[in-house]
Amino acid sequence: MRYELYYWPGIQGRGEFVRLTLEAAGARYVDVARLSRREGGGVPALMRFLEGDAVRRKPFAPPFLKAGKLVIAQTANILQFLGPRHGLAPLDEAGRLWAHQLQLTIADLVTEAHDTHHPIASSLYYEQQKSEARRSASHFVGERMPKHLDYFEQVLADNPRGKGHAVGKALSYVDLSLFQVVAGLRYAFPKSMRKLERDRTRITALYDKVAALPRIAAYLGSARRIPFNQSGIFRHYPELDA
Amino acid sequence: MRYELYYWPGIQGRGEFVRLTLEAAGARYVDVARLSRREGGGVPALMRFLEGDAVRRKPFAPPFLKAGKLVIAQTANILQFLGPRHGLAPLDEAGRLWAHQLQLTIADLVTEAHDTHHPIASSLYYEQQKSEARRSASHFVGERMPKHLDYFEQVLADNPRGKGHAVGKALSYVDLSLFQVVAGLRYAFPKSMRKLERDRTRITALYDKVAALPRIAAYLGSARRIPFNQSGIFRHYPELDA
Repeated sequence: MRYELYYWPGIQGRGEFVRLTLEAAGARYVDVARLSRREGGGVPALMRFLEGDAVRRKPFAPPFLKAGKLVIAQTANILQFLGPRHGLAPLDEAGRLWAHQLQLTIADLVTEAHDTHHPIASSLYYEQQKSEARRSASHFVGERMPKHLDYFEQVLADNPRGKGHAVGKALSYVDLSLFQVVAGLRYAFPKSMRKLERDRTRITALYDKVAALPRIAAYLGSARRIPFNQSGIFRHYPELDA
Repeated sequence: MRYELYYWPGIQGRGEFVRLTLEAAGARYVDVARLSRREGGGVPALMRFLEGDAVRRKPFAPPFLKAGKLVIAQTANILQFLGPRHGLAPLDEAGRLWAHQLQLTIADLVTEAHDTHHPIASSLYYEQQKSEARRSASHFVGERMPKHLDYFEQVLADNPRGKGHAVGKALSYVDLSLFQVVAGLRYAFPKSMRKLERDRTRITALYDKVAALPRIAAYLGSARRIPFNQSGIFRHYPELDA
C-alpha cells in the first residue's frame, strides 16, 4: 500500500514525526501537499479533507494519513497505527500502551515548545506577543525543558532491555520522536540545550544513534527533509533562549 | 478487577474524563488519592508512582490507572484502554482509531481552555498573568471555542448511525468527554457558552442525554463528583468571559 501523508507543505511541524516513522520504515508514501497544484498537491489538497466532502470522518487539523480507506488524524494516533505494522512498536498490549503514553507526553512537550513563541494566541504574529513570549520561554527553558528531559533520560535508564532505546529492545517510533524533539530544541534553544545535554547523556546518545540509521541519514540529507524555519513549531528567536 | 485511579484529589481536572468512563461503565474502582492518608491515600499515594520505585514505567503526570499489573497514563490512552473493555468504544479498528482521534482533539481543546488562565506558565499564579490571561481568553472565546464546537457539532451531524452519538450507534467515552467539556466550558465561560450553544443544538442535546444516564446522574449527585473550583482546568474568572 502507498500511504498519503497530508501536512502543511512548508514546515516540519507535527507532520515530521510521521515522516520520520514512514522513512525509518522504508514505507511507500506521498507527501501530498508538497506536490505541485498541477499534480494535485498544495494546500488545496489538505483543505478538501478539512472543509470539503472528501471524507465523512473529518480531521480537525493536519497531519492526517490516508491508508487505504482509512483517514487517520492526530500525530500520536497515526504513529500507534503505523508502529506495529512496520516493526516500529512493541506488539504486546502493555508495550503498545507504554509507547503511546510516551508519545502523548512528547506531544505535550511539543505543544509547550510551540506555545513559548505563541503564548497568547496562535492566530497572532510572534511580534504581537513578543514580551509575553519572553516571559513564557524563560519558564519553559528553566523549568519545563529540564523536567521533560530528565523524565526521558529516566525512561531510557529504566528500560531493562537497554541498548539505548526508549521502549523494548528495538527501535520504535518513540525513539524517532525523541530524536526530533532534541533536533527541534537544539534549533530553537541552542544555548540552553548545550547546557542541559551536558549531564543527560542518554538522550544525546539516542539522538546520535537515530541520526546514524541509514534510512534516517539518507532522509535528513535529502530534499524531503524541510529545514527548520521560523514558521514551524520549533523557532529560533535568540531572545527566547536565555 | 478493581481499578485504581490516581489523580489530584481536589479537582476534576483531566482525571474527570476517566472517572466519567469508569462510572458509566459501572466499573469497580478506587479513587486512591481521595482516600485519607491513613487509608493509603492523599497526594503521597500519587508521588510514590511519580518519584518513587513503585513502578518501572513511570508516568510523567497524573492521571494514571492501575489495572492489574498495568499502570497506564495519559487520559486519552487510559480511555482507549477502558473503552472497548466496557462497551464504551467501537471494537473495530477504524472505529477505535476514530474515537481516539476525537478524544485527542478534545484533549487539545482542554489544554487550550486551561491555558487561557495560565498563558505564561503553569507554575505562576493566575494573579501573576492576569492581563495576559485576559488577552489569551478573548482569542479562545472568540475564535477557538466556536471552531472546536463547530467541529464537534459537525461530527455529530456526520455520524450516519445517528441517534446523537459522536461515534457509532452507542454511547462511547467520546460522548462522556464531550459532556465534560460542555460542563467545563459552561462553568468557565457561562455568557459565551449561552451564546454559542444557541445554534449548536446537537452538542446541547448530547450533554442532556449524557447527564440523564442513570449511572451518570447518580454520580453527578454523589460526593464522588468534585465540584468545579478555581484550582482545576476550567475556572470561572468573569473577566475572561467577555
